[in-house]
Amino acid sequence: MNKLSETIPFDVRFSEVDAMNIVWHGNYMLYFEDAREAFGKKYCLDYLTIFDNGYYAPLVDIRFQYKKPILYGMKPEITINYVPTDAAKIVFDYEIHNSDDGAMLATGCSVQVFLDKQFHLIWVNPPFYEDWKTKWL
Amino acid sequence: MNKLSETIPFDVRFSEVDAMNIVWHGNYMLYFEDAREAFGKKYCLDYLTIFDNGYYAPLVDIRFQYKKPILYGMKPEITINYVPTDAAKIVFDYEIHNSDDGAMLATGCSVQVFLDKQFHLIWVNPPFYEDWKTKWL
Amino acid sequence: MNKLSETIPFDVRFSEVDAMNIVWHGNYMLYFEDAREAFGKKYCLDYLTIFDNGYYAPLVDIRFQYKKPILYGMKPEITINYVPTDAAKIVFDYEIHNSDDGAMLATGCSVQVFLDKQFHLIWVNPPFYEDWKTKWL
Amino acid sequence: MNKLSETIPFDVRFSEVDAMNIVWHGNYMLYFEDAREAFGKKYCLDYLTIFDNGYYAPLVDIRFQYKKPILYGMKPEITINYVPTDAAKIVFDYEIHNSDDGAMLATGCSVQVFLDKQFHLIWVNPPFYEDWKTKWL
Repeated sequence: MNKLSETIPFDVRFSEVDAMNIVWHGNYMLYFEDAREAFGKKYCLDYLTIFDNGYYAPLVDIRFQYKKPILYGMKPEITINYVPTDAAKIVFDYEIHNSDDGAMLATGCSVQVFLDKQFHLIWVNPPFYEDWKTKWL
Repeated sequence: MNKLSETIPFDVRFSEVDAMNIVWHGNYMLYFEDAREAFGKKYCLDYLTIFDNGYYAPLVDIRFQYKKPILYGMKPEITINYVPTDAAKIVFDYEIHNSDDGAMLATGCSVQVFLDKQFHLIWVNPPFYEDWKTKWL
Repeated sequence: MNKLSETIPFDVRFSEVDAMNIVWHGNYMLYFEDAREAFGKKYCLDYLTIFDNGYYAPLVDIRFQYKKPILYGMKPEITINYVPTDAAKIVFDYEIHNSDDGAMLATGCSVQVFLDKQFHLIWVNPPFYEDWKTKWL
Repeated sequence: MNKLSETIPFDVRFSEVDAMNIVWHGNYMLYFEDAREAFGKKYCLDYLTIFDNGYYAPLVDIRFQYKKPILYGMKPEITINYVPTDAAKIVFDYEIHNSDDGAMLATGCSVQVFLDKQFHLIWVNPPFYEDWKTKWL
């Protein structure tokens, strides 16, 4: 099985830093989202593809663990890894490193489910997602 | 003509404060939005009412002017005033004061237009908005 | 031991809703933060108190689990519960309900640690926090 | 006098789009901020440079004008232009275009003042900023 992964550098916005001069925890959700979008573009699993196939894929479980602070001016990068599962879910884990010294700054994971356009939960993998798995994994 | 206005107190979230320990300017957009929603509830001109009548009312012009910093722990309040116009627009101005000493902290104004659900600009006041004006002004 | 808890109603901002018409997951971080601030005010454990005692208390672990979507116009309320621990940490769990029908909408938990003002991790409870525990628990 | 300018492409985050499927107006503040940071890097006038010289430069006036909606999936780019002034201010204007067809999507402008680290307004250009102007303009 192939390991699907993407790594992108990112800049810390001044507005993302709090009064402690470190990135406010809620902003990690944005970095995770950026990583998912980059993954989606690389592997053709972005929001619009999912939507055009008739589904939403909302986040239903997300966890973030902080190791070291991210400071304004730091050069972090985020790696997103696809975690295979048989359930009708999309699971990722995340790692944020300081690109200067390789230090681990944070980790996280997320779970998305599939809803149809009437917001009903889909219990089996949608056909387009089965095809995607066959192609990429 | 009646003067339509609403004033609400608000709390400053820790996450809204930047590394200077003052509210980051982008967050004033949230305070203005909260004021519009409070106005909308008081005078029956909220997003859902507009939407249920078949329109969107996106912000097309917004301006914010800063007088004094808003600090974490301060007790500010925002006043929103309806600005009458014959154009097919919704115009508001805003004032933020420190409720402790009455000091003016910021001002602003915003303009919304009407779009139909195909995102076409509406050049004359929608009937529901004409009715609203007749009722309230 | 006393059970420390606070419940607050909240409004959903139009800007917090995404293209699916439901609250974007990242905004739950704001609701959790609002709940912590309300708890902090009720029980004298807010950011400024912690800061004035010489510490920061950043979030180091946060998890959010979604049960049902929060829609614009819904009347949700969030309950925050203090979770006692002997470790030098502040642990909370969270529940969001629909106040109309009592339905559970989301749960979450968070862990904060103490840093001194040089950003060093504090391994034992700071004296002010020991006093706080003695007073309230 | 040299014309100082920078243009950067940007992606629209799913979380930046509202229930109308278009970018929520408050997010333009983030795009403007990204443009200022890119400008600051190109011309050595970033937040850290200003801060290291002993000043803050908060936004005191910001205006945004919407021309056409920015949709998720669109490829916009933002241009920031430095606007020379003799006052002790940093003034920029902004233009957002669709890079596919060149259409103008939004414009804006911003004014920053200088505060010293006790938050006092500085009425004359700080020496470092005079040097900067001599070097670049």
